Amino acid sequence: MSQSTRPARGMRDFLPDDVRRRRHVIGVIEHVYGRYGFEPLATPALENIETLTGKYGEEGNKLIFKVLRRGEHESSGETDLALRYDLTVPLARVVAEYRGKLPKFFKRYQIQPVWRADRPARGRFREFYQCDLDAIGSTSPLVEADMLSAVSEVLQRLGFNDFTIQLNHRELLTALLNAAGIDSALHPTALVAVDKLDKIGRDGVREDMVSRGVPGSSADTCLTAFEDSEAFEALVAREERGVAARQNVREIMTLADVTVARGHVALTPRLARGLSYYTGAIMEVSVPDLAGSLGGGGRYDGLIGMFSGENIPACGFSLGLERILVVMTERNMLPGGVTRGAADVMVTRFEGEDPVDALRLAAEIRATGLSVDIYPDADKLGKQFKYAASLGVRFVTVAGADERARGEVTVKDMVTGKQFPVAMAEVGARLAAI
Amino acid sequence: MSQSTRPARGMRDFLPDDVRRRRHVIGVIEHVYGRYGFEPLATPALENIETLTGKYGEEGNKLIFKVLRRGEHESSGETDLALRYDLTVPLARVVAEYRGKLPKFFKRYQIQPVWRADRPARGRFREFYQCDLDAIGSTSPLVEADMLSAVSEVLQRLGFNDFTIQLNHRELLTALLNAAGIDSALHPTALVAVDKLDKIGRDGVREDMVSRGVPGSSADTCLTAFEDSEAFEALVAREERGVAARQNVREIMTLADVTVARGHVALTPRLARGLSYYTGAIMEVSVPDLAGSLGGGGRYDGLIGMFSGENIPACGFSLGLERILVVMTERNMLPGGVTRGAADVMVTRFEGEDPVDALRLAAEIRATGLSVDIYPDADKLGKQFKYAASLGVRFVTVAGADERARGEVTVKDMVTGKQFPVAMAEVGARLAAI
Repeated sequence: MSQSTRPARGMRDFLPDDVRRRRHVIGVIEHVYGRYGFEPLATPALENIETLTGKYGEEGNKLIFKVLRRGEHESSGETDLALRYDLTVPLARVVAEYRGKLPKFFKRYQIQPVWRADRPARGRFREFYQCDLDAIGSTSPLVEADMLSAVSEVLQRLGFNDFTIQLNHRELLTALLNAAGIDSALHPTALVAVDKLDKIGRDGVREDMVSRGVPGSSADTCLTAFEDSEAFEALVAREERGVAARQNVREIMTLADVTVARGHVALTPRLARGLSYYTGAIMEVSVPDLAGSLGGGGRYDGLIGMFSGENIPACGFSLGLERILVVMTERNMLPGGVTRGAADVMVTRFEGEDPVDALRLAAEIRATGLSVDIYPDADKLGKQFKYAASLGVRFVTVAGADERARGEVTVKDMVTGKQFPVAMAEVGARLAAI
Repeated sequence: MSQSTRPARGMRDFLPDDVRRRRHVIGVIEHVYGRYGFEPLATPALENIETLTGKYGEEGNKLIFKVLRRGEHESSGETDLALRYDLTVPLARVVAEYRGKLPKFFKRYQIQPVWRADRPARGRFREFYQCDLDAIGSTSPLVEADMLSAVSEVLQRLGFNDFTIQLNHRELLTALLNAAGIDSALHPTALVAVDKLDKIGRDGVREDMVSRGVPGSSADTCLTAFEDSEAFEALVAREERGVAARQNVREIMTLADVTVARGHVALTPRLARGLSYYTGAIMEVSVPDLAGSLGGGGRYDGLIGMFSGENIPACGFSLGLERILVVMTERNMLPGGVTRGAADVMVTRFEGEDPVDALRLAAEIRATGLSVDIYPDADKLGKQFKYAASLGVRFVTVAGADERARGEVTVKDMVTGKQFPVAMAEVGARLAAI
């Protein structure tokens, strides 16, 4: 009896070339983040359910995959564990748990999958990788600037040159909404509307804001400030918090300007970002041909305190591996060598030949560092060559009775089509040298 | 309000040095498996629950983590997804689903976590990594031999020299139990008892077999055959299946003998292995100082057919990352360099200095390929040096007012303790050359 063999809804299998493409991008990210002094961290896929609840807002909570209790409790329908929803909340838990073992200014990167029961769509999956970097323990704007530099270097090394990192500040938004006469109780819902500006346009957002209880004149004031920088500067300057936030953003931009982020960072007053835990600068990377962002982040000086009881400042940025791969694939940005097949050499087999010979030959060639596949069955030679070609193998070795009698192997170079005899004892060295 | 910050029961956080140790071992495994022509595969953490049920036996089924349905179905307590329990069943699903896109003799490795709701114990976790390699499509004993070679090379490269790969064959066990007069209906339960031989000894296993309905004389015949090779050979030779299996094992051992597995493979008639899907050779790696195995595998020619409807032969081996790490840590086998901290250089800060200078210097040094951390706050210099020492940073740069006036940086080598001035523009090149 056969059964469904599709992966679960919104999940994906990664065949060898997919894995190689993903590894290439992850390799670049890890290399750059390491050079910026960030260290690797990994946390379990499953967290106690209390660790996650109440951290992602009402909508987020609905998207958490919850795990049934086991054994005698299974029939109760109760859940005690949940799948990791992002990498920031587990980090906050880790910092609180291991505070004494970690450096004061703990800088970590973490590249792992997260799971969200979102409706699957193009580029949106239920299992997807986030590539996070976070710096704990300092409120210095140097932290944000160095992070902007690291993210810019990753994108540049991957071949992106047309990205923009939009920069804003939670307190600028608060000052602006206050100045526009929006009651602070309405700020969260107003920002949900503002967040849709790129999608539904100015008129759509105005309508949405009004439907959420924001006076029309206040909505107009905000929406004008998003387009008119003079109006924006004047409004945010009315409150001390706005002045301080504006100064913080200015410092971050000045600092980022001496790094590879230069020319890529733009103050973007309309940038709101969804997550409620941000307290300072917020950032988001975009490229022209992608709706939505390649990643984003910001300062969250309160989240770790939810676990440790002690307020510890923190700032983080998350790159979305899936979106980066979507754009890189569409733009043909992945180097061709990335998806090269596994084996350099394939050893053929002959009917009646002792398979010991094939294994010996493979061992000898592998000893030079080359990768070697052995055709497992003694099929017709033509079939074996066709198979080698389909794999993309570079060299095929043939050792029939004649060759073996002479202590030789015939090697075929599948790229040039040339064949040449090589003494059995020298095959490895000869092929490794080509 | 603070809350629990422990990872969930049986799960682990991996701090930076833990991640580095794990990566080192995984890197060796991937390198070797790649050289044997195995290609990487990755599958989702969540599978449809039907994919997993009925594959692992009754005990296994109880250990599967099941995920609650979402939205309106949440309150029903129904489950539709489950966490990956091993890497073999997902592989069988993948082979059935992508048969036309995969090479005929698909050879893949897969290194991913699996989840089992087992009672946590020393070296036994609820989230743990398996490192699997499998070869699909051929019944040739060359497949088993090449796999024994690959596994042996991994272990040797990790520094293991005292490992044994126990080899047996499902059909040898069947022939032996038949010859001992054990009814075939009792074979599975008898083998569960046999599997405990290392743990509870001969008398314990005899008692257990009898309690499972095996006649005492039959149990004695089996247990004697496990110790007396002449008795064993005579018993298995009574049936054609035993003769064929003995011949298959002989071929595998002869072939393995010309590879790096030489001297490590031992026919072990008592080896039973738990999983019910094995049909041919079975294997298990052990080292003297570890109860239990570092990994194991075998031939399973029927499992893929459960998904594809078409019987496709297959053989696989799984190394347990956690156990390998336990033994390597206890024996101090991990190279010291593996846990070296992230940054080569730390740039210090000064009160009143423009942080732009620190960022510029860091950017210049990073451009040479070195990793650079910047101390984020303008603390006392002594505090910054102490911090650099605690991180294990090699070089610390100091650029006070005097140094900056001369266009210089003072570099302190934290290993030798020596300090020396370097022209600002040459710091990167000088440090990279040391």
